[in-house]
Amino acid sequence: MLPETLLLRLELMALSDLYTSILDNDRLEDWPGMFVDDCLYEIIPRENEEMGLPAPVMLCDNIRMLRDRVVALRHANIYEKVAYRHMVSGLEFTAAEDGTITATSSYVVVNTSLAGFSEVYQAGSYRDIIVRTEMGLRYKSRRCVFDTLKVQTLLAVPI
Amino acid sequence: MLPETLLLRLELMALSDLYTSILDNDRLEDWPGMFVDDCLYEIIPRENEEMGLPAPVMLCDNIRMLRDRVVALRHANIYEKVAYRHMVSGLEFTAAEDGTITATSSYVVVNTSLAGFSEVYQAGSYRDIIVRTEMGLRYKSRRCVFDTLKVQTLLAVPI
Amino acid sequence: MLPETLLLRLELMALSDLYTSILDNDRLEDWPGMFVDDCLYEIIPRENEEMGLPAPVMLCDNIRMLRDRVVALRHANIYEKVAYRHMVSGLEFTAAEDGTITATSSYVVVNTSLAGFSEVYQAGSYRDIIVRTEMGLRYKSRRCVFDTLKVQTLLAVPI
Repeated sequence: MLPETLLLRLELMALSDLYTSILDNDRLEDWPGMFVDDCLYEIIPRENEEMGLPAPVMLCDNIRMLRDRVVALRHANIYEKVAYRHMVSGLEFTAAEDGTITATSSYVVVNTSLAGFSEVYQAGSYRDIIVRTEMGLRYKSRRCVFDTLKVQTLLAVPI
Repeated sequence: MLPETLLLRLELMALSDLYTSILDNDRLEDWPGMFVDDCLYEIIPRENEEMGLPAPVMLCDNIRMLRDRVVALRHANIYEKVAYRHMVSGLEFTAAEDGTITATSSYVVVNTSLAGFSEVYQAGSYRDIIVRTEMGLRYKSRRCVFDTLKVQTLLAVPI
Repeated sequence: MLPETLLLRLELMALSDLYTSILDNDRLEDWPGMFVDDCLYEIIPRENEEMGLPAPVMLCDNIRMLRDRVVALRHANIYEKVAYRHMVSGLEFTAAEDGTITATSSYVVVNTSLAGFSEVYQAGSYRDIIVRTEMGLRYKSRRCVFDTLKVQTLLAVPI
């Protein structure tokens, strides 16, 4: 018999893997669909997070903003094309009475530059709120709290 | 109850972990056994893959060629000994009616040089076809499509 | 139906994830609790391990030593604060008749310096002995065998 919490762990891993696969395979158009309509997505430096200073480098607070960002990225030429590879580990989570899941995990994103060099691009922590919808688990909130302050390139593509 | 697809996910993770463990612990002799006899293994630059230009830097199209490569590696002194650590994430897969599984995942290989420096060696994507045999899941085809064009050393050891 | 060995795999992944989460989120005080009282924790260069030369750079052989180390770290100012992100893969394990589990996995630790640069800090292999206690799985022994000889900073914080 599989304990409830291990089953949920497997589902959360599948969710995280899908998120990674979408971003790493440049299927940006599928990215907003991982969130509920009334969602929050932000990328914020760890220092600001810890001092309670809101100063995200990227902030979308509903699904239309996520979609707008994707459209903008597809039409913009101002940033260098990325080739991310997301590595994720350290999943820890709790499920509330109403089914809402609070989760954290560590991430390391390796990027390959146009010149062909692969380097650690950003390390940090995902802080998630996940809800169950008719279409499966979705992010209500995904906050990317990053350690890395010296980044190689403009941060335009979601982490 | 565990949904079929989550059970298969677990099995695929076990397969990937075994593959990683074999390569990272220098048990090269066990590597061919992860494939069926009539298999394909190749390492190919992402650019070539996307342009449909076949120009793999490594290509084996049956299990004997995998075994030959291992023997060659054990006897060759022309390449610097590697100490790989494979990180894998973003598993996504579909299973066909006949049980054949098509899967992709992201990988980052960190290598430690003889001088003792650890660096990202190669980032890329596994594109797999996996089949169920009497001995469990095996690779029918594993294609390593790599982003990294500037590699530190000769690519002689499987990824 | 979930085979016993896949259930155990899931439990071991949960254990590893918790370990990662504790260290990556600077919850050092929770770290000793992942071990049984009569435990071994060491960090040892791969070369020494392979030559059978005991010369760990860190060695604790009971839980009190783990706790002492945490207290020392919290009061010491001699080392640069770390921001680790542990990536773990390649889990392979066997369970003995008496339930004792022997496991190995690959790790890559990315660290972000005070200056804000994220780099591969250490790559290596966990060699674990894990036992089942009333409080769940715990490490009887965790040996961190590292490949990386050129490290950026003093190794003071557990891996």
